[in-house]
Amino acid sequence: MEINPVKGTHDIIADEANLYTMIEHTAMMVASEFGYQEIRTPIIEHTPLFLRSVGESSDIVNKEMYTFDDKGGRSVTLRPELTAGIMRSIVSNKLHANADLPLKYRYVGPCFRYERPQAGRYRQFNQFGVEAIGAPGIYQDAEVITMGQRILLSVGLEDVKVLINSLGDEESRNAYRQALREFFSKHIDKMCSDCKRRLEQNPLRILDCKVPEDKEIIKDAPKMIDYLSPAAKAYLMSVIAILKSVGIETEIDPTLVRGLDYYTGVVFEYHFEKKEGIDDVGALGAGGHYANLLQEVGGPSLEGVGVAFGIERLAYIIKSQMQQNGIHFGLDFYLMGMTDDIIQKNFVLADMLREGGFSGEMNYSTKSMGAMFKVAARKGAKFAIIVGEDEIARKEVAVKNLKTQEQTIVKLEDLENVLHSMIDKYYADMNAAPTEEE
Amino acid sequence: MEINPVKGTHDIIADEANLYTMIEHTAMMVASEFGYQEIRTPIIEHTPLFLRSVGESSDIVNKEMYTFDDKGGRSVTLRPELTAGIMRSIVSNKLHANADLPLKYRYVGPCFRYERPQAGRYRQFNQFGVEAIGAPGIYQDAEVITMGQRILLSVGLEDVKVLINSLGDEESRNAYRQALREFFSKHIDKMCSDCKRRLEQNPLRILDCKVPEDKEIIKDAPKMIDYLSPAAKAYLMSVIAILKSVGIETEIDPTLVRGLDYYTGVVFEYHFEKKEGIDDVGALGAGGHYANLLQEVGGPSLEGVGVAFGIERLAYIIKSQMQQNGIHFGLDFYLMGMTDDIIQKNFVLADMLREGGFSGEMNYSTKSMGAMFKVAARKGAKFAIIVGEDEIARKEVAVKNLKTQEQTIVKLEDLENVLHSMIDKYYADMNAAPTEEE
Repeated sequence: MEINPVKGTHDIIADEANLYTMIEHTAMMVASEFGYQEIRTPIIEHTPLFLRSVGESSDIVNKEMYTFDDKGGRSVTLRPELTAGIMRSIVSNKLHANADLPLKYRYVGPCFRYERPQAGRYRQFNQFGVEAIGAPGIYQDAEVITMGQRILLSVGLEDVKVLINSLGDEESRNAYRQALREFFSKHIDKMCSDCKRRLEQNPLRILDCKVPEDKEIIKDAPKMIDYLSPAAKAYLMSVIAILKSVGIETEIDPTLVRGLDYYTGVVFEYHFEKKEGIDDVGALGAGGHYANLLQEVGGPSLEGVGVAFGIERLAYIIKSQMQQNGIHFGLDFYLMGMTDDIIQKNFVLADMLREGGFSGEMNYSTKSMGAMFKVAARKGAKFAIIVGEDEIARKEVAVKNLKTQEQTIVKLEDLENVLHSMIDKYYADMNAAPTEEE
Repeated sequence: MEINPVKGTHDIIADEANLYTMIEHTAMMVASEFGYQEIRTPIIEHTPLFLRSVGESSDIVNKEMYTFDDKGGRSVTLRPELTAGIMRSIVSNKLHANADLPLKYRYVGPCFRYERPQAGRYRQFNQFGVEAIGAPGIYQDAEVITMGQRILLSVGLEDVKVLINSLGDEESRNAYRQALREFFSKHIDKMCSDCKRRLEQNPLRILDCKVPEDKEIIKDAPKMIDYLSPAAKAYLMSVIAILKSVGIETEIDPTLVRGLDYYTGVVFEYHFEKKEGIDDVGALGAGGHYANLLQEVGGPSLEGVGVAFGIERLAYIIKSQMQQNGIHFGLDFYLMGMTDDIIQKNFVLADMLREGGFSGEMNYSTKSMGAMFKVAARKGAKFAIIVGEDEIARKEVAVKNLKTQEQTIVKLEDLENVLHSMIDKYYADMNAAPTEEE
């Protein structure tokens, strides 16, 4: 039997899974502080949803979707991103009809794209994001960008820059598409077959091309910023000014257009400032304004703005930072008993300690003390709690700090309180200690 | 365009999503206290994995799997449960080779089964669970059952009973299968076509049949407990005694066999004691011991024990309880500004308050006070913070408790501290108030 995971998917285990969970919880919590409510939409959707939203000219729809027929013979697709499903959910649940606008939703979950697997890129990956729909404006756009930056700060990523651009209004985009068409017509016979299709369908998509030869040509293409109407340009500048008022510096990137068909107006990306020992991983997160997306999937004409982050990329960077700082997770206690009789009593003691909020494990079969100390160390336990015949008789246990090797005798009735103080002291000592090594 | 979710899937929105998240976080936290580490395996696996683990005689494999060919032409399946993927992950990552046994993992995530949709049953649903592999024994089985019960307590479900049974050892099961074959042979022509297949493949699976006429026949079938070897019976009794030592009452259910082929030894289910206003939803969670599962998927011969909970069912019951108690979630503040100039300043103030850990929203366009108070109330905000021209001049804001309608003038520099005290008091008053109505 094939015992490997499906190509392009991966297992996330122990400390790495803790890291993913920490990032996701933090992001969801910050979004909640900004008034975004949680929404969970299904992983499977009817295929036409993505054709209408992500767009028939996008690479995702053209090459990367997990599409299949279900047992009822209907074409379904594993979602390649989450915004489309949320728009569909607003329409099917008529959320726009009985709530104050804007609707504000936060989400997190797995997505699927049939891409060529490469370092840090998976066919199943996790996205977090928010959408604010129905009350468009400079502050709403700025709020989403601010929230994204606050999330990055909260997960410990400080050296982040915000790249920003505008795809303008309908008028600006039409003028720009015309300019791109004229420019690329002169070069298209030297470009890849995807770009030939893109020139027909939507010349904006050529700007996303990753073929090195094509990228050389794209460098000299007309820039969106030169085709913005005065109103669109003023809007972009206002958003930049609001961001400045809360201390967020932006950088206008005239080539930034994003790979999805639905964006209009302001678009943006968060990039990590390159550091020693950490490879460039592209955008940490990105988003933008969309005028017509909800209408495209059958809803009313309400504009929105959203942002999404790839959890895999954030985890990759934070993991590199944690490794540099030597941080890891572990149990509070490992409870040791030398006889079958003591093991039986320890099962009740362990249960009591966990109910008191401590994390820990115990031995279920008799082993030597040496063997048990080794297990406790490998599990990263902070304290070993040792219960012997003599201790039982005196209603005491021995508590050993596995870092300092100090051992203390504790009355059983005081154990919870003493353990609380010991753990507080353990963390205090850890923070006070000079950081000696990597 | 079809605007509904795919049949059998559903959207989970706002308060309901909060509830799912609360249940999942709590379960994962309790499991972490018991020393289980997080694992995340992919949603897509190679199809043979489930044939080998869940079993070719199970209803899941026979009728309910989302199986399709990927773009590379390989048969893949959306996981119908999570245990199989974890076993596969142990083998592909060789986790059994370089760790202390037992391996202990916790997990949560979506699963897919093509079942007939009905109240509380979905084709995409969420499971939480744990697996402990490689150090089998009465305490390890009891630990998993204890942990499950502690999770139910932690999410507020107190009236839960544990049903328990044993599928015995190889010898017990062979004797029992023989007895079942003899019994059902006499009735099989009156039974459903699934049961006819089951009689051939694995007569144990007949006991899971949900056809009412078949259930009548099954009532009189031989009981597993009468075919247990003395060793298997003693093991079951020891587990029951350990559970009693930590205050968990069990009830032996001789018909309990679980719908998966991989169980051996102790099996168990958690059931909610039926209450007024809450329908019977079947087992809240279930699990058991498995001797051969890891070996079946290509790993070494290590026994394990696991438990899984359906988040949908837990949410259904807790939601009914919350509705009875009138509990809901809301924002800390809604910040109101009457002019464009104040809105601009409020954007910075809101940012500061959120960085201080408060959750809140603000108006981004000018509206009447009345309209803004309505928005604040609908969003469940605890406090309105009102900023007018006069207040700005005096560096003050007005803070209004939206429950008591009390209004206080607060110096801007004291706002964070005052808001902290006010929110503490808000919760204290809420807890002190007699519960008047539903």
